[in-house]
Amino acid sequence: MEPNLGLVFLSELVGTAMLVLLGCGVVANVVLKGNKGYGGGFLMINFGWGLAVFAGVIVSAYSGAHLNPAVTFGLLARDLATGVDYNWAMLPVYLAAQFIGAFLGAVLCWLAYKQHFDIEEDPGAKLGTFSTGPGIRNNGWNLVTEIIGTFVLVFVVIGFSAQNGVEADVPAGLASLGALPVALLVVGIGASLGGPTGYAINPARDLGPRIAHALLPIKGKGASDWSYAWIPVAGPIIGGILAGLLAPTAIAGITGFAA
Amino acid sequence: MEPNLGLVFLSELVGTAMLVLLGCGVVANVVLKGNKGYGGGFLMINFGWGLAVFAGVIVSAYSGAHLNPAVTFGLLARDLATGVDYNWAMLPVYLAAQFIGAFLGAVLCWLAYKQHFDIEEDPGAKLGTFSTGPGIRNNGWNLVTEIIGTFVLVFVVIGFSAQNGVEADVPAGLASLGALPVALLVVGIGASLGGPTGYAINPARDLGPRIAHALLPIKGKGASDWSYAWIPVAGPIIGGILAGLLAPTAIAGITGFAA
Amino acid sequence: MEPNLGLVFLSELVGTAMLVLLGCGVVANVVLKGNKGYGGGFLMINFGWGLAVFAGVIVSAYSGAHLNPAVTFGLLARDLATGVDYNWAMLPVYLAAQFIGAFLGAVLCWLAYKQHFDIEEDPGAKLGTFSTGPGIRNNGWNLVTEIIGTFVLVFVVIGFSAQNGVEADVPAGLASLGALPVALLVVGIGASLGGPTGYAINPARDLGPRIAHALLPIKGKGASDWSYAWIPVAGPIIGGILAGLLAPTAIAGITGFAA
Amino acid sequence: MEPNLGLVFLSELVGTAMLVLLGCGVVANVVLKGNKGYGGGFLMINFGWGLAVFAGVIVSAYSGAHLNPAVTFGLLARDLATGVDYNWAMLPVYLAAQFIGAFLGAVLCWLAYKQHFDIEEDPGAKLGTFSTGPGIRNNGWNLVTEIIGTFVLVFVVIGFSAQNGVEADVPAGLASLGALPVALLVVGIGASLGGPTGYAINPARDLGPRIAHALLPIKGKGASDWSYAWIPVAGPIIGGILAGLLAPTAIAGITGFAA
Repeated sequence: MEPNLGLVFLSELVGTAMLVLLGCGVVANVVLKGNKGYGGGFLMINFGWGLAVFAGVIVSAYSGAHLNPAVTFGLLARDLATGVDYNWAMLPVYLAAQFIGAFLGAVLCWLAYKQHFDIEEDPGAKLGTFSTGPGIRNNGWNLVTEIIGTFVLVFVVIGFSAQNGVEADVPAGLASLGALPVALLVVGIGASLGGPTGYAINPARDLGPRIAHALLPIKGKGASDWSYAWIPVAGPIIGGILAGLLAPTAIAGITGFAA
Repeated sequence: MEPNLGLVFLSELVGTAMLVLLGCGVVANVVLKGNKGYGGGFLMINFGWGLAVFAGVIVSAYSGAHLNPAVTFGLLARDLATGVDYNWAMLPVYLAAQFIGAFLGAVLCWLAYKQHFDIEEDPGAKLGTFSTGPGIRNNGWNLVTEIIGTFVLVFVVIGFSAQNGVEADVPAGLASLGALPVALLVVGIGASLGGPTGYAINPARDLGPRIAHALLPIKGKGASDWSYAWIPVAGPIIGGILAGLLAPTAIAGITGFAA
Repeated sequence: MEPNLGLVFLSELVGTAMLVLLGCGVVANVVLKGNKGYGGGFLMINFGWGLAVFAGVIVSAYSGAHLNPAVTFGLLARDLATGVDYNWAMLPVYLAAQFIGAFLGAVLCWLAYKQHFDIEEDPGAKLGTFSTGPGIRNNGWNLVTEIIGTFVLVFVVIGFSAQNGVEADVPAGLASLGALPVALLVVGIGASLGGPTGYAINPARDLGPRIAHALLPIKGKGASDWSYAWIPVAGPIIGGILAGLLAPTAIAGITGFAA
Repeated sequence: MEPNLGLVFLSELVGTAMLVLLGCGVVANVVLKGNKGYGGGFLMINFGWGLAVFAGVIVSAYSGAHLNPAVTFGLLARDLATGVDYNWAMLPVYLAAQFIGAFLGAVLCWLAYKQHFDIEEDPGAKLGTFSTGPGIRNNGWNLVTEIIGTFVLVFVVIGFSAQNGVEADVPAGLASLGALPVALLVVGIGASLGGPTGYAINPARDLGPRIAHALLPIKGKGASDWSYAWIPVAGPIIGGILAGLLAPTAIAGITGFAA
């Protein structure tokens, strides 16, 4: 059955907005002054982002919940590599919905935390709520870190889909648990590979909020760090495509699982 | 089969009491002096409330475990929006049970932590164990935060029910896992949107304990902050209704899932 | 089919030893000097005990993994209250296995952390690794806290079994997830109700290790605090029995679920 | 059906590399200066390693995801003890793939955290990212701790496989959850038994990265602590074999489950 492109757009937009609202939200809670979760630590941020993925996936089931151009490009690469027909009309629909959804999610996050953005004095904390930045700035190595992190994300996601098979046949009442593995995976990637760059591992998650940061009338905001902005776009796309190309060969027996 | 209203009342009352006993309990553990979990941090509070939802849902299966007027109003709005017949006799039964259950849960929490309420000197810490209060007081923005948080809760809950279908058909032995998604969702909302107001996202969870705080002979207690009390009631109801109205349209293909 | 009493004994003994080895282990890690997890916080202890339950339940499936006299007495009370035939020969088998298993688990924990017991100077930290003690000593209120905590444990456990039905019919490959709900419940009870007394909620878990503390040649150990020892025995048994008596009525529709 | 040895090799290699990349990664994040997760605590390390197991198991399904010579030897011991035919050709394939995979994972971790290795001044922190070391150095007791920790791992893993049965029959869409129990188990073992030695509980996980530490041009690195290196190899193998020998008897009714 051919999916409805309008519903795919809606599904990705809503899911990515949910992802970014909750994901940027947990960072705001931890880094902006006056919040209950202020100083709550990196593990709290990891769980926040992981559960943001969980919520986003639930409301984006219609489109398969990519929520991330790196996943979309990775699955495209996988399909090309394995000779599966790819519906090219899908590509711009997914990408547009993801970036617009991420932008909207960041706006909602700003509204939820409006007063804490107002009283926070550090412009770096404000930008950090929207977009990622490296601990040690170096284009090459920051790119490497984002490539590895996103490679893991897309590689394991393809592992999920291989295991789960093509046709869903889940007992009613437990279907929502199907969103748990990818949520846990993102908790893990954040904890394990998020140290150097803050794990964008998703171009929409980083660029959408960065544009929101640039456009919104945030009190006392600084620059949006555009010189870094290409890295959390390029790195995840490269990592996702590499995973899509390699996974069908590198995950042993993957064709058998999927068949 | 028409549900028994008396059993619905019992089910919601027991479930909400369980929710509030464990939920207020984790706050007491973290904020009241002399406890093993004193200073345990916001992530601990997030997990405590999430697992409070888990336990409450398990013992409230008969009534579908709303445990929250915002969920009850949200599902009412959804049913009206989608033309489903709504059993109006249910509404006061759910609401009464939720508020009474929340009050009883708060009394039990006070008993479990009685000595720590006695030795704690800060009246704000005592009230904070019962009810929420904002980091930065502002009626408008505090309301916005509660609306957004509860919107996410009810919107994703409707996503769960859409995915899971109307009829439960879960393998025996795993049925209790069906309570896990909403528990994880509440962990996530707390971490991600709980910073500014402490995430009531549930009028019964906030008002029931606030009444308990006013009535119980708590040593050295201060005022019950009634001027704020309407916000964690109104915000969640507005957010829940908005989610109920929007979810059937905004979650792509939701009718298809539920059918 | 009548269960084999010898295998029931073995199953409870192994499961309770696993529970106490891992449960006392996480406390040792957090409170004894020189450990990697030293000062790791109460949430870490909560997760450690919850996952100790998880491991214990897995290896104790044959006997239904009570691992706790309060659960055994609670299920006995439930069966008597609901007119189910109770096999009285089981009772001493379960209890003996649980206390012996808990003792053995504590011995193993001491061996795993031997050097850290040796260098730790505070005898209170050593005893705290084995058995619970209250933050504020008061027989009456400490008992209340243990009763409430164990009531929640057994009440929700009966909720699980009601939901899950009598006959297991779990898809192979996911069966081990059946141990997850009770593990999460114990994480939650620890976070929410563990503040005042350190949540024994299990007479075997407390008394078995206390006897081990008294008998083992632990370097620089202090007294085993026998004046408190009856509270984490009596409180959990009272709480468990109350839950067993009330659950069949208080959890709405429970008979329907179990039938 | 006889498994393909080449695919078994690939599967174990990829899975162990994933395990070590994410596992060493979370340590790097917590202990190397300049990282977002710097000082994130031991619970974060426990979750990081547990979710590393989760990701590794997902991509290593073809070979059953041992990822650990102690598991391979433990299952060998179990098969010998229970009279099951063992395919001896498998043994060197599993072991070679695990050690090579662990080495590669450590190299990838070093690349992801390259700049943070460069700025970190403490050589002990660098080695600690790769391999384990004891809090209190003592060959005998360190060995005991590693034996107990690995015994728990392999013993409970055999419990999983007994419960889950021989033939997998998991509903599509939830299959990936089958990797959750072992991930949670490793979180728990880390929290509960990881204090004294940092829980290698896996010879490949420790020796593979130690060799990488010795060979890689890591700026300002110290010695690779070869005098300790045999303990996290011998301890886990002993613990795994003991578990494999004892589990079929000690886990009551295990034959019944597996049949």
